[in-house]
Amino acid sequence: MDTLIQPRVLKGFRDFLPAAEIERDNLIEKLTAMFRSFGFVPIDTPVLEYTDILLRKSNGETEKQVFRFEDNGGRNVAMRFDLTVPFARFTAEHKDELYFPFKRYHIAKVWRGEKPQAGRYREFVQCDFDTVGSNSAASDFEILNLMKAALGAIGVTDITVHINHRGIFNRFLAKIGISEKSEDVLRSVDKLSKAGRDNVSQELTEITGSSDTAAAILSYIAGGTDFNSTLSIIENMAGGPAEDTQRMRDIHAMMEAAGIAGTYVLDPSITRGLDYYTGVVYETFLNNLPSIGSVCSGGRYDNLAGLYIKEKIPGVGASIGLDRLIAGLEQLNLTAQKGSYLDAEIYCLDEKNAIAYQKTAAAFRALGIAVEVFPDAKKINQQYTVTDAKNIPWGIMINNENITAETVTLKNLSTRELYEDLTVAQAAAKIKS
Amino acid sequence: MDTLIQPRVLKGFRDFLPAAEIERDNLIEKLTAMFRSFGFVPIDTPVLEYTDILLRKSNGETEKQVFRFEDNGGRNVAMRFDLTVPFARFTAEHKDELYFPFKRYHIAKVWRGEKPQAGRYREFVQCDFDTVGSNSAASDFEILNLMKAALGAIGVTDITVHINHRGIFNRFLAKIGISEKSEDVLRSVDKLSKAGRDNVSQELTEITGSSDTAAAILSYIAGGTDFNSTLSIIENMAGGPAEDTQRMRDIHAMMEAAGIAGTYVLDPSITRGLDYYTGVVYETFLNNLPSIGSVCSGGRYDNLAGLYIKEKIPGVGASIGLDRLIAGLEQLNLTAQKGSYLDAEIYCLDEKNAIAYQKTAAAFRALGIAVEVFPDAKKINQQYTVTDAKNIPWGIMINNENITAETVTLKNLSTRELYEDLTVAQAAAKIKS
Repeated sequence: MDTLIQPRVLKGFRDFLPAAEIERDNLIEKLTAMFRSFGFVPIDTPVLEYTDILLRKSNGETEKQVFRFEDNGGRNVAMRFDLTVPFARFTAEHKDELYFPFKRYHIAKVWRGEKPQAGRYREFVQCDFDTVGSNSAASDFEILNLMKAALGAIGVTDITVHINHRGIFNRFLAKIGISEKSEDVLRSVDKLSKAGRDNVSQELTEITGSSDTAAAILSYIAGGTDFNSTLSIIENMAGGPAEDTQRMRDIHAMMEAAGIAGTYVLDPSITRGLDYYTGVVYETFLNNLPSIGSVCSGGRYDNLAGLYIKEKIPGVGASIGLDRLIAGLEQLNLTAQKGSYLDAEIYCLDEKNAIAYQKTAAAFRALGIAVEVFPDAKKINQQYTVTDAKNIPWGIMINNENITAETVTLKNLSTRELYEDLTVAQAAAKIKS
Repeated sequence: MDTLIQPRVLKGFRDFLPAAEIERDNLIEKLTAMFRSFGFVPIDTPVLEYTDILLRKSNGETEKQVFRFEDNGGRNVAMRFDLTVPFARFTAEHKDELYFPFKRYHIAKVWRGEKPQAGRYREFVQCDFDTVGSNSAASDFEILNLMKAALGAIGVTDITVHINHRGIFNRFLAKIGISEKSEDVLRSVDKLSKAGRDNVSQELTEITGSSDTAAAILSYIAGGTDFNSTLSIIENMAGGPAEDTQRMRDIHAMMEAAGIAGTYVLDPSITRGLDYYTGVVYETFLNNLPSIGSVCSGGRYDNLAGLYIKEKIPGVGASIGLDRLIAGLEQLNLTAQKGSYLDAEIYCLDEKNAIAYQKTAAAFRALGIAVEVFPDAKKINQQYTVTDAKNIPWGIMINNENITAETVTLKNLSTRELYEDLTVAQAAAKIKS
C-alpha cells in the first residue's frame, strides 16, 4: 500500500468550512445586490495573465510578491495580484465593445506571496467597483454613496469615510516649492496613523530638508473642525479656489442632498500612497474598531489604461477588503453563524420507508420548503446531532401510521414542541409562519 | 514615453463582458439556490495546492496539463485542475470538524493547459455537488434528483440522464473471465458514442483477445427496451440478483415515487472512464442537442480520501460543466441577454441639477427601484445609446419645473410612451407594475 500523504494547505492559504463560507457568500450576495441596484455590472477576467501585462507598472515589492512562472508553452505568466491592473487591460482591449461611462464590479480572488501574519493571507478576495469614462463630480459622489450603501447592506453602518483630494495637496506642495518630492511626501503622510506624528515629522524634515516645511505640511494635514472649515483652510494653503476645491464642494452638496453627509470627513492626511490617484481619495474606518485600518478605500485616477492605449480614460473606484472586513465583523460579533440553508430535516426512522420520505420531501419542496432526507437509519440521537450542527429549525418524523394517513409529525428543534398528524400543507404553513 | 503594451489574454483564457458574465452569474445563482434547498452547503479551498497533494493519483495526461511551478519559497505548487481532489484533501483534513453525511457544493474555476479548441478552455468553471459519509440508495437518488432539479431551475428541462452501475458491469466482466482487463474495457466502452460500435468492437476484440467476448460485451451494453427489462437483462448476464441490482431497483422506486422516473434511462454503456467510481454512474444529455456531450456527470465512489487517511469515506456526486452547458443553451437560444440590473436611468439634462438628480435617485432607491444617474450632460441621444445598450426599461427626466413641483417625467424606453408630472411614489408604482 502507498504511504499516506499528509493533507495540508500551503502557508497563507485557507480552507473555508461551511459556516465560514456561508458567511462570506452572504456578505458577497448583499454587496452584489447593492452594486447592481446602483447600475454596476459584473465582468470577469482570467486569473492568469501575461507577466508583462500585470507587472509593467508595478514596483519592486509587488514583483517579489507575485506568483509567476513559465507555462508549458514557454510563456511568462503570473497570477493577478489585484483587480485594477486586469481591469485596465480589459478596458483597453474591449473599449469598442463597452458603453461609457462604464460601471463594473468584480469580486474575485487575488494572490500575493506576502509574509503570512494575522489577517494577511496569500489568497484573498477583493470587491472592486469603478466607474470609468466620466470625470464628473456625480461619479465621485456615486462611488462614495455606494460605499456607504454597500457596507450598510451588510450591517456595517457605524463607519466614517475619510476623504481628501490629491490635486489640492499637490497645489499646496507646489506652492511651498517641493513638487518634485510629492510622491515621497505622500507616502510619508500616508503612514501618519501607523507611524505617529513625530516619526512622520522627522521623515518629512529629511525628505524636504527643512523642519519648517515639515511643520507646514503637518499643519496642512491637521485641517479644521468640520468639512467646510477644513476645506477653507486647505484651499487657502493651496493658493485659493480652483476646480479641485469646487469639486469637493459639489460632492459635499450631493452628500447633503442625499442625507448622508455626516458619514464623510474631509481629512487632508489621507493620501493613499499609490501614485496613480489624481483626484479624490478615501478610506473607510469602523467607528468601533478603527485599529484594523481601512475596510474600503479608493479614489479617482485620470488615466486608467495608459500602459496599453493612447486614449486617456478617467475613472473613480473603490475596493472593499473582504477578509479584513470579516475579521472586523467577527471582533464586533456582527457575523451570523449559519450551518445550512435548510428549513427542515426528514429523519430516517426506518430505511424501508425511504420511498415515502422522498415523496414527502418532493411535496414539501413543491411548497417552497427547503428540506433534506436523512439518508441512513442511524440512531435518532446521532441524527439529531447532525441537524443541531447544521442549525436546522424543524424536524419531520414519518412513521407507518403517518404514511397511511398521509400526515407527518413536525418538531420545533429549538423548543422541542411537537405538532402531530399534520398534512404536508399544514406543516409547510407552520414552518413558514 | 514608454511604448504601449498590446492588451491581450493568454490563449485558452477569456474575458467575460457584462452580458456574458450576467448570464453566467444568473445560472450560478439559480443552481446555488437549488443546491441549498436540498441541504447542500458551500465550501472553498485554495486555488494553489502542494503538487504532491493534487497529482499523486493523476495519470500522465493530467500531469502534462496542470499549471505547476516552484513558488518563491521553493515549494512545488500547482493550480487545481478539478474540484474533486481538493475536496478529498479537504475532507481528510477536516473530518473531525465536519458532520456526516456531509453534503457540499463548490462552484469555482479550475485550470488545465489543454490544447484550446472549440468549447475547450484552459480556465473554466466547475459546479460540483457531493454527499460523503453515506452509502445509502437515498444518497444516490438525492444526487440524481438534484441534477434534474438544478438543471430545471435554469430552464434545462428537456434532458435524459443515462445511469448505470459499475458493480453490475464488473460482475459481468468477472463472469466472462476478463476482470483483470476491466479498466481497459470500461475505457473502451466509454468511447462508444464518439468512436462508434464498429471501432469499439474492434478495440474490445484486441483488449480481450476474442471477438466472441467483444460481442458479449456489446450485447450487454445494448440493454433492453426500458428500465426494468434492461435491469433484468444485465442482472442475468452478471450472474443474478445482488446488492448492486437491488440498489438500482431501490433508486428506480424512489424516482417513481417522486414522479421523475421518465427522465432516467438505464444505459449499460455508460461507464465514466475514471477508475475511482465503484457504484452508480451517470451522464446527462440535452435531448435537443445530444451532440455536445454530457452536461452533468458523476457517480458513486467508495473511498474518497484514501490517499490521505486510512478511513474509507464513501460518497456520491455529480458535476455540471457550466461552460459546455452555456454553449448548449446559446445554440438552443435559451440564454437571456441582459445588459444591466437597472429598472431606470435618470438622464442628465443639466449638470447644474446634479444634486436634484441624486436626491431623486435616493428617493427611488428607498422605494426599491434600482436606478442610476447619468453622470455627464452629454447630448440626450448619446445618453439614450448607453441606456439602450444596457436594456434599461425606464427613463426618468427631471427639468427645472419638475424640481420645483417635486415631480418627474417617466418614459417607457421600449414603447417611448411618456408619463408626465408623476411624484416619485407614482413613478415607482408605475415601474413596478
